[in-house]
Amino acid sequence: MGIVIRDCTLDDRVVTVTLSGGHIASIEAAAPDADGGAGAGPDRVIDGRGLHLLPALRNGHTHVAMALLRGYGDDLPLHTWLHDRIWPAEARLTGDHIHAGARLGILEMIRSGTVFFNEMYWHVDRIAEAARELGVRAHLGSAFFDMGDPERERLWRGNVERDVERRDELGDLVELVLAPHAIYTVSPHNLRWISELARAHGLRLHTHLSETEKEVRDCVDAHGLRPTAHLDAHGVLGPDLTVAHCVWMEPGEFEMLARHGTTVAHNPCANLKLCTGGFLDWRMAKAVGTRIVLGTDGVASNNSFDLFDELKFAALVHKHRADDATLLPAREAWSLVTSEPSRAFGLGAGTVEVGEPADLILVDLSGPETCPGHDLHSDLVYAANGSVVHTTICAGRVLMHDRTLEVADEAEILHGAREAARAIVSG
Amino acid sequence: MGIVIRDCTLDDRVVTVTLSGGHIASIEAAAPDADGGAGAGPDRVIDGRGLHLLPALRNGHTHVAMALLRGYGDDLPLHTWLHDRIWPAEARLTGDHIHAGARLGILEMIRSGTVFFNEMYWHVDRIAEAARELGVRAHLGSAFFDMGDPERERLWRGNVERDVERRDELGDLVELVLAPHAIYTVSPHNLRWISELARAHGLRLHTHLSETEKEVRDCVDAHGLRPTAHLDAHGVLGPDLTVAHCVWMEPGEFEMLARHGTTVAHNPCANLKLCTGGFLDWRMAKAVGTRIVLGTDGVASNNSFDLFDELKFAALVHKHRADDATLLPAREAWSLVTSEPSRAFGLGAGTVEVGEPADLILVDLSGPETCPGHDLHSDLVYAANGSVVHTTICAGRVLMHDRTLEVADEAEILHGAREAARAIVSG
Repeated sequence: MGIVIRDCTLDDRVVTVTLSGGHIASIEAAAPDADGGAGAGPDRVIDGRGLHLLPALRNGHTHVAMALLRGYGDDLPLHTWLHDRIWPAEARLTGDHIHAGARLGILEMIRSGTVFFNEMYWHVDRIAEAARELGVRAHLGSAFFDMGDPERERLWRGNVERDVERRDELGDLVELVLAPHAIYTVSPHNLRWISELARAHGLRLHTHLSETEKEVRDCVDAHGLRPTAHLDAHGVLGPDLTVAHCVWMEPGEFEMLARHGTTVAHNPCANLKLCTGGFLDWRMAKAVGTRIVLGTDGVASNNSFDLFDELKFAALVHKHRADDATLLPAREAWSLVTSEPSRAFGLGAGTVEVGEPADLILVDLSGPETCPGHDLHSDLVYAANGSVVHTTICAGRVLMHDRTLEVADEAEILHGAREAARAIVSG
Repeated sequence: MGIVIRDCTLDDRVVTVTLSGGHIASIEAAAPDADGGAGAGPDRVIDGRGLHLLPALRNGHTHVAMALLRGYGDDLPLHTWLHDRIWPAEARLTGDHIHAGARLGILEMIRSGTVFFNEMYWHVDRIAEAARELGVRAHLGSAFFDMGDPERERLWRGNVERDVERRDELGDLVELVLAPHAIYTVSPHNLRWISELARAHGLRLHTHLSETEKEVRDCVDAHGLRPTAHLDAHGVLGPDLTVAHCVWMEPGEFEMLARHGTTVAHNPCANLKLCTGGFLDWRMAKAVGTRIVLGTDGVASNNSFDLFDELKFAALVHKHRADDATLLPAREAWSLVTSEPSRAFGLGAGTVEVGEPADLILVDLSGPETCPGHDLHSDLVYAANGSVVHTTICAGRVLMHDRTLEVADEAEILHGAREAARAIVSG
């Protein structure tokens, strides 16, 4: 039973690894017998020769169905992009479109080695359907907006309550998250309401924080507090919260996040591309021990779910901004998509060790792009892209092998996504 | 005779293109007869269905053999990196190592759609050998250093004079360039000597300019001039000159470059990664009409020859630095690796038109990474990487087809590169 990966490279060793019950059951230097030490014949033997075994990647902030809008209205000012392109298209989105977009986004993730995403959008049941089909983990939250309008509050409270009731239907690898959209779209009393609801049910929280300077200014004007303190005042901060962006922050705000054990999802490409002005201050955040994970944001503002891209942007742009070539070295960058998000989202250690979840990738670094191979982590962060991923495994299930998707028909996913994209942009 | 590419996509049309004598002979909407309109049966018919035909990419600044040092000493301060890693390794380099490294680097370029590089290193005859074998175009210059030392001056003048004498041996697609390394390694009288020598023989020039703040300060201290004015004072500036970097510039310096028609090779990743402090100021350079092309620099400081990566970095980082999401839109970014370098280096228009050099790529954008395909240039710049390149053609010769190198044995190139890399780092 289970899967045996024979003769793959783990750090500098050649090992054979058995997977059983969704976890790593053994890691042996010598190839074990064909039964993989799991008692019976393995369901499958994967030839790992020449391939590096690594933890699968985890994406800390997504709007997965926006894959349908990749490249639709780039190079526009933020306001024009949102008002003239994204919002009108999103207004046409049905659950079917979101399902089609989620399948596309998840397919792209699997192809670039990602098996978990922390998501905020709508129709989470349809996103969960795509995640179940394609076999990835997800934390899914319906974006809660009230805009100070009692009618919207009633509608969205109803949606959230229904999500909470039905949370067990989402799937074994999928968890419901409650997702107040942002401080400028959610009234203070609803920030508190949704946080208390999450905690009553043991659910994580996910929000946007300090993405633009205007958000900070408006918050100070309206509430006399900077955004992080505003979240704190209404009981939102905690170890179960992920805050996306944190571009416009003061040191005291990162201290507040660190003290609460809150996780920051940092989205380098989206922040650069949409020109939210600033950029997360790495040293300021790390000086107080803030936990940071990487995210892609929606690909309409990126335009890729490939976390290998995000790694290179993070490492290079932080070095540049701090004028320090030693900042965020390759091995630390790699932890931002493996061990850090694994711990943040309760998904194990994000390492390849016995007992850990069998969320793994086999990576082919034998091509010219990563030759001669002086340093594994350097090659992963600075030289590779998602196309080096050969095999993607989540919870012990092989999702892609030798770059062929095994859990669904890739052509059919692409066809469905193109149809949905056409429908939403042509109105 | 020649090659026929049938039924590929050019912009929004499906066309059949014939190549003959190294040029594009025809572009027809309807598929022509099997003879491709070239009088006799074509040597080869390539099925272009589902593939986009685009101009091949051109790299404005490289040290190609440094591919051997990819990932060798990342995340170090510039000084430590150079003194403890790069220079000791380079001191061990033989012509054979450089040949092996050049083959690796050119292989990586071909696989990511690049068929021309503007190079400065040593043993240009051995780099030319690799370029001839693999069928790419190159402008090759031996880095000239004198360091104020008459002995070195004699040695390097001798080398340059020998290069000039033997320039016709380099190959049909390869041109010799004269390459004074930088203002801080070449004495003023040798800047003049080498520039006059280049112009006497109709050769282009290639140097580094204003990469670090120290270089600017030292130049002002020593000569009372900023670096660009110093080059001008010694007769180096001209339309035949490429200057790499231009990180620390004042508006008057870009004006000087623009007035002389000098080309700037901008290397976003290398400048970010090595922390040369500043970054080329896009608006300042463009306000006076400076011609800018993209380069990768050596991959030891990048760590990739994939110009698709460089495109995304250029577009995103310039938007961020200028706080303007509309700056350097995708179509303009694309010109920095196609039409701009083609014109700068005398290689045609860098467009797919009849009469242009048959330097072409076929790109497969049918995968999830570039789905749904709202905008071709956005997908190329923001979503794609070099792995979308299906076929690479230079001067009408197919170098790679369906991602298989046709001009040499890829495994043998990789083996040779690994051997050479081992030799130079283990000393």
